[in-house]
Amino acid sequence: MKNLRHNPLLMIPGPVNVRDDIMEIVSKSVVPHRSLEFSKTLERTYENLKYVFQTKDDVYILTSSGTGAMCAAIDNIINSGDKVLCLVNGIFSMRWADIARAKGAQVFLIEVPYGCAVEPKVLREFLSNNSDIKIVTMAHSETSTGVVNNIKALCKIVKEYGAISVVDGISSVGVMECKKDEWDIDILISASQKGFMLPPGLSFLSVSMRAWDLYNKCVYHNEYFDWKRYDYAMEYNTVPYTPAVNLICALNVLLAEYKNEGLENIISKRAKYAEILRAGLRNMGLELLANNDEISSSAVAAVYSPKGIISNEIIEIMKNEHNIIIANGQGNLKDKIFRIGTIGDIGEYEINYTLNALSETLKKIC
Amino acid sequence: MKNLRHNPLLMIPGPVNVRDDIMEIVSKSVVPHRSLEFSKTLERTYENLKYVFQTKDDVYILTSSGTGAMCAAIDNIINSGDKVLCLVNGIFSMRWADIARAKGAQVFLIEVPYGCAVEPKVLREFLSNNSDIKIVTMAHSETSTGVVNNIKALCKIVKEYGAISVVDGISSVGVMECKKDEWDIDILISASQKGFMLPPGLSFLSVSMRAWDLYNKCVYHNEYFDWKRYDYAMEYNTVPYTPAVNLICALNVLLAEYKNEGLENIISKRAKYAEILRAGLRNMGLELLANNDEISSSAVAAVYSPKGIISNEIIEIMKNEHNIIIANGQGNLKDKIFRIGTIGDIGEYEINYTLNALSETLKKIC
Repeated sequence: MKNLRHNPLLMIPGPVNVRDDIMEIVSKSVVPHRSLEFSKTLERTYENLKYVFQTKDDVYILTSSGTGAMCAAIDNIINSGDKVLCLVNGIFSMRWADIARAKGAQVFLIEVPYGCAVEPKVLREFLSNNSDIKIVTMAHSETSTGVVNNIKALCKIVKEYGAISVVDGISSVGVMECKKDEWDIDILISASQKGFMLPPGLSFLSVSMRAWDLYNKCVYHNEYFDWKRYDYAMEYNTVPYTPAVNLICALNVLLAEYKNEGLENIISKRAKYAEILRAGLRNMGLELLANNDEISSSAVAAVYSPKGIISNEIIEIMKNEHNIIIANGQGNLKDKIFRIGTIGDIGEYEINYTLNALSETLKKIC
Repeated sequence: MKNLRHNPLLMIPGPVNVRDDIMEIVSKSVVPHRSLEFSKTLERTYENLKYVFQTKDDVYILTSSGTGAMCAAIDNIINSGDKVLCLVNGIFSMRWADIARAKGAQVFLIEVPYGCAVEPKVLREFLSNNSDIKIVTMAHSETSTGVVNNIKALCKIVKEYGAISVVDGISSVGVMECKKDEWDIDILISASQKGFMLPPGLSFLSVSMRAWDLYNKCVYHNEYFDWKRYDYAMEYNTVPYTPAVNLICALNVLLAEYKNEGLENIISKRAKYAEILRAGLRNMGLELLANNDEISSSAVAAVYSPKGIISNEIIEIMKNEHNIIIANGQGNLKDKIFRIGTIGDIGEYEINYTLNALSETLKKIC
């Protein structure tokens, strides 16, 4: 273990390993949120968030879990009875349906088996038969299965049919190519504890002008997450409510580095890490839920546990004997799969180290 | 400045100075939120939160600003058209009205001048003439004015008239006597960056069985803040969504200390600090918005700027020449008052240091 920077090593798809110098900023930055200095920090942070979101629209900073940003996204555009289509291929893409129903929407699902992506042609067929769908939700990188949807194609179709596309980019923004404006994503959200390599506590939301049209027709907004409050505050480089100031100060530093390094370089690096991991897993004879590279996330790989083995056994040995934390499956996939993240402050060394530990673990119990 | 532990010294009513050893925990505790270890931390934290809230009801931990907890409190009990009475004596108690209106409530206000508390007899008179009020909101310690409402008397009246009392304890819980169960407070909220002496990012919510009755009659809940999600997660000593794990680990340590020290002792200490501050301010000939000790908060003192002086001038000198941050007024009170907090990691030394610096500042500009 002595060569590892993190102890234990977090190889879960969030929370991720955070760099020591970034945690140093987190611990030194309990600053007054109404000060001029903090406004300057916010101004730079807001600007660089646009770069990472690949958008000219504003990106709002929310103090919440990622699910808070999901509510912020659709609670402000749904009226009771509105028809919402949810593209579901895992636990997190199903969450959009719960949130939409809680706001009184009529929810339709296109649900595909876990491990699959949603085919654009299936969406096209559905929308051509259901012209009154107002909103279509989806996950970019579905963290529960490691599957990536082709949101570029999906959002294009959504736009064609006059609906609003809502994309969960929680484990994709800052990790994989995700071009909000170029791909016509109307609403894109993310969170601090994945591609942004920070502790959990912040989430992000960016909305298009077309989405604002729906906002303006919405009767009841979610006050804590009301876009107008954030929009108004941004004009003054501030935030509506006392935010997680120290995370924002750390985010500011990280985003400046992202801009220097270049988003394409970060994305290539993460793709390479994920490829090394997948190749290593397949070399051990393991089967992944995402069965081809085209639909594989750069944030997380979901792996079937070998026959007869409950995945928790693997997870426990990895933790107790190797000090590496990997994740179990969720919902129906619990104890059937395990998941290994490739986000946060890790590199090839940590991935190979994890693969070696996994190989030893499997030899021990198979 | 060399004798001060904090640089700059935050004498605002939140965010507050956080102890170095607590920030050390914050910076070392990015832990997996679904681990057994974290569940154990949560179990202890949940238990000790009940002690600080003085309640047998559960206390939910939300990842949000304090305003998020305000939404969590009333978004889950209001149906469109419900009558809500808001007792308003400052910016923050007015926020309840905004949130209630956003959910479609018919909002009634009892508004008293800033610097005053709401008289219980005025509430009684209103309720005796308006029997269909379902919910009554109020602030315990109104952070914008330093005024404390007699919520013990107010909540008793609310209960007598069969309504649900909702109390903003953001700057009072852990600072002043606030007995949820004994005082019949139905819904009590607070946040991490005041009496809990942590960075901002967490908020807390505790609800009575009577409040659950209203919850069950509510048609649309706020999904991110839905009580049922938190209630269900607590059974398994977990949380519904990825929380600010490192703040919770730090909270766990602080709450254990609170229990050891004894809430009464903490409350006496804070009362003494606030008295020293008020006495010092009055000795300088300054006038406070809260004009008697009975309605004065132990968290913050709001002070009129001397005639002809814009309070921002005082704030700037305090910052630039003394490295002490104090707060401006908000809304209509901006530049007319300044506010000095007595919460967070400070003691008599810091209060006297601040009073001396203020005295020098006033001599310079008056």
